[in-house]
Amino acid sequence: MFRNSYDNDSVTFSPQGRIFQVEYALEAIKQGSAAVGLVSNTHAVLVALKRNAEELGSYQKKVIKIDSHLGLALAGLAPDARVLSNFMRQQSMSSRLIYARPIPVARVVNAIADKAQVNTQTYGRRPYGVGLLIAGVDETGPHLWEFQPSGMVLEYKGAAIGARSQSARTYLERNFELFPGLSRDELVVHGLRALRDSLAQDKSLTSANTSVAVVGIGEEFKLYDGDEVTMWLEKVGDVGSSRGRTEIEQPEASGSGPTAAAAPDTMDTTD
Amino acid sequence: MFRNSYDNDSVTFSPQGRIFQVEYALEAIKQGSAAVGLVSNTHAVLVALKRNAEELGSYQKKVIKIDSHLGLALAGLAPDARVLSNFMRQQSMSSRLIYARPIPVARVVNAIADKAQVNTQTYGRRPYGVGLLIAGVDETGPHLWEFQPSGMVLEYKGAAIGARSQSARTYLERNFELFPGLSRDELVVHGLRALRDSLAQDKSLTSANTSVAVVGIGEEFKLYDGDEVTMWLEKVGDVGSSRGRTEIEQPEASGSGPTAAAAPDTMDTTD
Amino acid sequence: MFRNSYDNDSVTFSPQGRIFQVEYALEAIKQGSAAVGLVSNTHAVLVALKRNAEELGSYQKKVIKIDSHLGLALAGLAPDARVLSNFMRQQSMSSRLIYARPIPVARVVNAIADKAQVNTQTYGRRPYGVGLLIAGVDETGPHLWEFQPSGMVLEYKGAAIGARSQSARTYLERNFELFPGLSRDELVVHGLRALRDSLAQDKSLTSANTSVAVVGIGEEFKLYDGDEVTMWLEKVGDVGSSRGRTEIEQPEASGSGPTAAAAPDTMDTTD
Amino acid sequence: MFRNSYDNDSVTFSPQGRIFQVEYALEAIKQGSAAVGLVSNTHAVLVALKRNAEELGSYQKKVIKIDSHLGLALAGLAPDARVLSNFMRQQSMSSRLIYARPIPVARVVNAIADKAQVNTQTYGRRPYGVGLLIAGVDETGPHLWEFQPSGMVLEYKGAAIGARSQSARTYLERNFELFPGLSRDELVVHGLRALRDSLAQDKSLTSANTSVAVVGIGEEFKLYDGDEVTMWLEKVGDVGSSRGRTEIEQPEASGSGPTAAAAPDTMDTTD
Amino acid sequence: MFRNSYDNDSVTFSPQGRIFQVEYALEAIKQGSAAVGLVSNTHAVLVALKRNAEELGSYQKKVIKIDSHLGLALAGLAPDARVLSNFMRQQSMSSRLIYARPIPVARVVNAIADKAQVNTQTYGRRPYGVGLLIAGVDETGPHLWEFQPSGMVLEYKGAAIGARSQSARTYLERNFELFPGLSRDELVVHGLRALRDSLAQDKSLTSANTSVAVVGIGEEFKLYDGDEVTMWLEKVGDVGSSRGRTEIEQPEASGSGPTAAAAPDTMDTTD
Amino acid sequence: MFRNSYDNDSVTFSPQGRIFQVEYALEAIKQGSAAVGLVSNTHAVLVALKRNAEELGSYQKKVIKIDSHLGLALAGLAPDARVLSNFMRQQSMSSRLIYARPIPVARVVNAIADKAQVNTQTYGRRPYGVGLLIAGVDETGPHLWEFQPSGMVLEYKGAAIGARSQSARTYLERNFELFPGLSRDELVVHGLRALRDSLAQDKSLTSANTSVAVVGIGEEFKLYDGDEVTMWLEKVGDVGSSRGRTEIEQPEASGSGPTAAAAPDTMDTTD
Amino acid sequence: MFRNSYDNDSVTFSPQGRIFQVEYALEAIKQGSAAVGLVSNTHAVLVALKRNAEELGSYQKKVIKIDSHLGLALAGLAPDARVLSNFMRQQSMSSRLIYARPIPVARVVNAIADKAQVNTQTYGRRPYGVGLLIAGVDETGPHLWEFQPSGMVLEYKGAAIGARSQSARTYLERNFELFPGLSRDELVVHGLRALRDSLAQDKSLTSANTSVAVVGIGEEFKLYDGDEVTMWLEKVGDVGSSRGRTEIEQPEASGSGPTAAAAPDTMDTTD
Repeated sequence: MFRNSYDNDSVTFSPQGRIFQVEYALEAIKQGSAAVGLVSNTHAVLVALKRNAEELGSYQKKVIKIDSHLGLALAGLAPDARVLSNFMRQQSMSSRLIYARPIPVARVVNAIADKAQVNTQTYGRRPYGVGLLIAGVDETGPHLWEFQPSGMVLEYKGAAIGARSQSARTYLERNFELFPGLSRDELVVHGLRALRDSLAQDKSLTSANTSVAVVGIGEEFKLYDGDEVTMWLEKVGDVGSSRGRTEIEQPEASGSGPTAAAAPDTMDTTD
Repeated sequence: MFRNSYDNDSVTFSPQGRIFQVEYALEAIKQGSAAVGLVSNTHAVLVALKRNAEELGSYQKKVIKIDSHLGLALAGLAPDARVLSNFMRQQSMSSRLIYARPIPVARVVNAIADKAQVNTQTYGRRPYGVGLLIAGVDETGPHLWEFQPSGMVLEYKGAAIGARSQSARTYLERNFELFPGLSRDELVVHGLRALRDSLAQDKSLTSANTSVAVVGIGEEFKLYDGDEVTMWLEKVGDVGSSRGRTEIEQPEASGSGPTAAAAPDTMDTTD
Repeated sequence: MFRNSYDNDSVTFSPQGRIFQVEYALEAIKQGSAAVGLVSNTHAVLVALKRNAEELGSYQKKVIKIDSHLGLALAGLAPDARVLSNFMRQQSMSSRLIYARPIPVARVVNAIADKAQVNTQTYGRRPYGVGLLIAGVDETGPHLWEFQPSGMVLEYKGAAIGARSQSARTYLERNFELFPGLSRDELVVHGLRALRDSLAQDKSLTSANTSVAVVGIGEEFKLYDGDEVTMWLEKVGDVGSSRGRTEIEQPEASGSGPTAAAAPDTMDTTD
Repeated sequence: MFRNSYDNDSVTFSPQGRIFQVEYALEAIKQGSAAVGLVSNTHAVLVALKRNAEELGSYQKKVIKIDSHLGLALAGLAPDARVLSNFMRQQSMSSRLIYARPIPVARVVNAIADKAQVNTQTYGRRPYGVGLLIAGVDETGPHLWEFQPSGMVLEYKGAAIGARSQSARTYLERNFELFPGLSRDELVVHGLRALRDSLAQDKSLTSANTSVAVVGIGEEFKLYDGDEVTMWLEKVGDVGSSRGRTEIEQPEASGSGPTAAAAPDTMDTTD
Repeated sequence: MFRNSYDNDSVTFSPQGRIFQVEYALEAIKQGSAAVGLVSNTHAVLVALKRNAEELGSYQKKVIKIDSHLGLALAGLAPDARVLSNFMRQQSMSSRLIYARPIPVARVVNAIADKAQVNTQTYGRRPYGVGLLIAGVDETGPHLWEFQPSGMVLEYKGAAIGARSQSARTYLERNFELFPGLSRDELVVHGLRALRDSLAQDKSLTSANTSVAVVGIGEEFKLYDGDEVTMWLEKVGDVGSSRGRTEIEQPEASGSGPTAAAAPDTMDTTD
Repeated sequence: MFRNSYDNDSVTFSPQGRIFQVEYALEAIKQGSAAVGLVSNTHAVLVALKRNAEELGSYQKKVIKIDSHLGLALAGLAPDARVLSNFMRQQSMSSRLIYARPIPVARVVNAIADKAQVNTQTYGRRPYGVGLLIAGVDETGPHLWEFQPSGMVLEYKGAAIGARSQSARTYLERNFELFPGLSRDELVVHGLRALRDSLAQDKSLTSANTSVAVVGIGEEFKLYDGDEVTMWLEKVGDVGSSRGRTEIEQPEASGSGPTAAAAPDTMDTTD
Repeated sequence: MFRNSYDNDSVTFSPQGRIFQVEYALEAIKQGSAAVGLVSNTHAVLVALKRNAEELGSYQKKVIKIDSHLGLALAGLAPDARVLSNFMRQQSMSSRLIYARPIPVARVVNAIADKAQVNTQTYGRRPYGVGLLIAGVDETGPHLWEFQPSGMVLEYKGAAIGARSQSARTYLERNFELFPGLSRDELVVHGLRALRDSLAQDKSLTSANTSVAVVGIGEEFKLYDGDEVTMWLEKVGDVGSSRGRTEIEQPEASGSGPTAAAAPDTMDTTD
């Protein structure tokens, strides 16, 4: 019943060696809509759900282009993602200016990781409340990385973040062995199927709520939104949620429970 | 009954990943009177209610001109809005000095968004307590953006902020498909009708309580106040609130409930 | 019964989006004696009550001259007012040095407004505990502004601050339509009548407790104190409070209630 | 019974707009022994009681000379007074160096007032715990000012601070109309009589416990201590306290009550 | 039942002279998977368990190369280890630039120790939440050091950190007398056997979950991951955990108890 | 029973205007062993008790020479005294360098007083926990000053600080009228007799526990310790405590009560 | 039962004038293993127990050489000792560079004392958690100093710190009169006998757990560890603890009680 006092800032360890504020930042990610990334031998793909697709407004950007060889999908606090993506853009431009080459994916990923770690060890800041999937191509081929508020970054063959992303992850785990040899389009279709599995019951992937981005060897980072997405959805076939009525739909408590429902729709976690 | 201790500053996540101080700042917006914005293919329009129209004083500025191609409407803490609009004016002047061109709307909007985000991640500051609708025209045409204290900014076809703005938003959602092709004057009339829907019961739009601003392709940002508004109201026709006696008038608890009523009229949320 | 913890500093929003420390600063103003300002087409006038007129001491300055075209009346913490008026004097001198002209009234008013806003958004400061009525004349004619601790400033035709100022405000509301065409002396008389309405029961305006200041087009800011005030009072006629015995005299709880009575007379709110 | 939490620092307003730490600083003054000041048309006089006249030690300075035309009497924390008087001395020397003239009394008084105000609006400092009576002569004649920890300064014809100073003030109020025309010596005698009225029961003014200082037009600030005081006391006549046995001797709770009695004699409030 | 308040930061001693935050940082290490180091007369070897071997992702780096003569294995917060290893890399590069030689192992180890100590004596930081085993070769031969969050560093003949590392340590203690004379390959085999003893019940060392690194006199630091590890495992023979069913498997409460099980798999302690 | 919260730092006044942290610092002085100072027309003398005369160690310095004309005796935290005496030494050296003369005693005393006052008005420092008796000779003759943690300094004819110093003070009060005309040696004898009166029951002044220092007109500051003290004690005659068995020996609660007894002998208050 | 709140930082006095955080730092020393120092007319000797002599690791350094004429033994937090010894090394090198001579022992000792005092008077730091015995030889002969976290330093003929050091101190007190005339080797033997008396029951001095260091006039500081110690132990004769079974072995509660036993062996107090 009683909560201890170890969760008020990110410079205090709990007696078990945990840093709760960093863990709470992960919850902000779970409140964002799902994003999925995957790589083949030649391409890296990002697909993402745009939640609360209000007709009046443009969608909040779920997928952001950083450079011609590099982009990211986000889940969590969009303003935090904007700050980080601005920083990545600067790093990328510096690389082109100083070294006359696109920045290697691992390098820019580590740059934001170090920036994020500082916020977990300095009083008076807070960890970034956003998770990122970074897709890019450099001299060593296509890459997919996941960034977390702790400053942790890991390279993946396939990854999913955001609300109900566990279902997408399960899809990826079942199919990742196919990915290396897939064509560009097949890779996108697998991404969309994984994303579909993270849909809430009775929801479908639509050109209105889905973003797709592709980058490949010799192919610049390209973002597909709105009508451009239709062609991709047609290739997927069944775009509806596979969740049945009888299924208890609370795979992640914080993402779909009443608490999350109570989050004001003006909050930025609505991405 | 018991409130946790996660809502005292903007650098602490709650266990659910929320930043309560940022959410509370949104409540300050709801205490401001309503403002509405909308765009056609050629124009962007802002209309706003001036609350507490005291005869002795000038109205507090609800609509502020930033540059000849750019202006904003505000809801919430007026001094915070003044600080932000001063900042936008500096950005705008810099653009003219350095690049010899009016600042693109998206750029100035992102500038204040980044400025606002810092206040959500640094101890000892507070989030800005004001929402803004920014209307402007640049090389890519007319634009309408909404700014929030979290540092979130989104482009809209039509948007409404402030007390009872949900009713105005409903109007916009029902009619936004008409907007692109509307003439300048038709656009203002739709804006005023949306604004009218946010009126409290028994209130009417008057030249005393309504501000109108228009900016368009080839047309500088112009603010209409006082008698200048009369001609617009005549075009609207019925300017009275559509809220009936039997309607329970508390669409937004914080904006019209007893708490808000208790707010001192000297508080700046009276805009 | 239980007070929340949102009122300890000015960088914390309450769940309703209020900043209590700023509101509390307004209470300091209500503990000051009343001041009234009003403008005609040609003149701006300030009149003020000097409370606790102790025979031994000079009166604390209720009206302060800033420049030959500019002055202010204050209610609340006198040392805070002195700091702000020193700042205004510097701004005014800078204007004369750099632009070789008296500072426009709106400009100097916005300068202190911005200075005050910073104190409402930075930890470790407190809002200024003083309200100001600023009267001045510039190229656009005579002006009257009210300054509040929140950093809010508004231009008025007539305004009143301090203890029981609501009564003075009522007078102004009933008569403000006369003001534009009034002569210099008539304007002062109306100001004194408004001020008289803010007197506590059984009190009268006297040359000992009343300050008058006038500034006009072509007429420098002039302050009348002591015997100089007598001629003005003679023009007013009845200088006694209109409050009857049967009237419950607590229009503003914090200004006239037992709490205020308990305030030490050495406290600066006695202005 | 329960105290609120608004009295821990000087940057927090209470809900009534009070700054308790500043008020508490006034209590430190009341724990100091009494000091009285008064002015005629030609002279300014300070007289003060030296409490705890221990035979072994020199008296703590109750009256301090700042410059040849300027001095002060203090009540409260002596080290705070020393800091302020050092600052006044620097200001005074600067005036002589830069402007080749003694510093005007009002100027040096405002300088410490501004310095003190900063401590009431900045976290991590405390208000000065001392009250001062400043007596000086400049081109506009003799002056007497009172300085308070809030940064409030007021000019007086006669003033008294410290323990039981209310009785001295009463004396001054009854006699101040005589002061302007008094001779130098008569002025001192009135000062000593006022001071005598602040004596505790059964105490007398003696050459050991009384300080006298005089400054006048054409007469430099001169401090009389010890035997030099005898001649003044002889002119007063009855130097004993007028408080009878039956009088309940606690005019100021904090100055003479058991709390004050418990204050360690090493504390600096013993001045 | 009641915890004292001495464990909130690293600048407060408990009444027993302990610094709890530093001790809690040690718990973060225990939540990391095990790492083992050992030295012979000619070589230094690091072996480590990669926990949560998710098929989709690359393993988080348990062993990091710093320079051609130097590397480390980590247990605890990976982002903290990245910061420290970046620092070591800079130190190492400086040595090569300034002194034209590889940095001595003891020197680089002391550099991070001093860096870590600062975080245990400065308010507003937290101790590093990671333990390191540093293996390197310099002019004085091969060395193995352990680094702790307190800033403590010690040289070892054999050492083990992370979850269940006590079992590995026991193995090392039983066999360390053999180490000096062992060949390169024998040394690795002993390391893997020690590591095997830290496996949870029913687990085995596999090419997927084991990292091996070797550095020797005249032999650069080389890291073996994935298939490269197979050859090493074949030399070990039995790679399964020796823990029986009947054994109560909670040698270290914080590392394998329910608390640890509840740690989110996104937390960085999963290394 | 309940303590208020006004005693946690030196920047908070209690409602009675007291600064408790400064008062607590005085208690640290009372835990130090006694020191006595006195002056004649030609000499100033310091004598002090060295408590806990452990055979193994040198005595902690109770009397410190600052310059050839200046020295001090301390009671309280010895490291704080060292910091202050180092500062005095620097001031003294500066005087010799810049003005080519020994620093006047009052000047150096005021320098440390100002330094100490800062610590009573700035958050994050603590008052110095030491009292000093400063003895020196300058152009105006021999002087004795007492320094307190509040920044208070007073000149004395005779003074005593530390445990049971009240008894020594009583001796001084009974005999101070003799001091001016005493010879150098007689002055020391009186000092030792006063010091003797502060001895605990059954204790005696010995060459092991007594320090003597003398400075005079034309005679440099000289410190007598150990055997050098014997000659002085012989002149005193009876060197034993005059406290009888029946006397209740707790003149100062904090200095001799059980609390003080419980103070660890490693604490620096043992001087 | 209830602890007050005066023990959370080193800038707060308790009502009794104590600084608890400094006292708690002393407890950290008591958790370290014992160290003993002693001086003759020609030599200074340090001997120390290395606790937790784990076979796998090197011993943590209990004795550290600073310069050819200077070294120290430590008890408490080893990383704090490293920081202080690095500082001493810098001071020592500076002396050789600037003055071309070894630094006097008292000077370097006072340098760390001043450095330590700052940490007892500044918020946001903590006192050093280590005690030091410093042995050195300079122009005035051999010296032994003890350093404490309070910034207190004292010169000793013989001293002991750390767990159960009281027993060693008792030995020193019984024998110190012999020390001045002892030969180098005899001095070491006495040191080891004192150290032996601080052993826990059933423990012996061994070449594995004992360090010896000697510095003398004309003889550089030399540290004996491991086998080099054997020759010294042979000279001692009986190297076993003299504590009998019946003796209640808890001379110092914090050093040998269950609390200390519960201290994690990874904590640095194990020196």
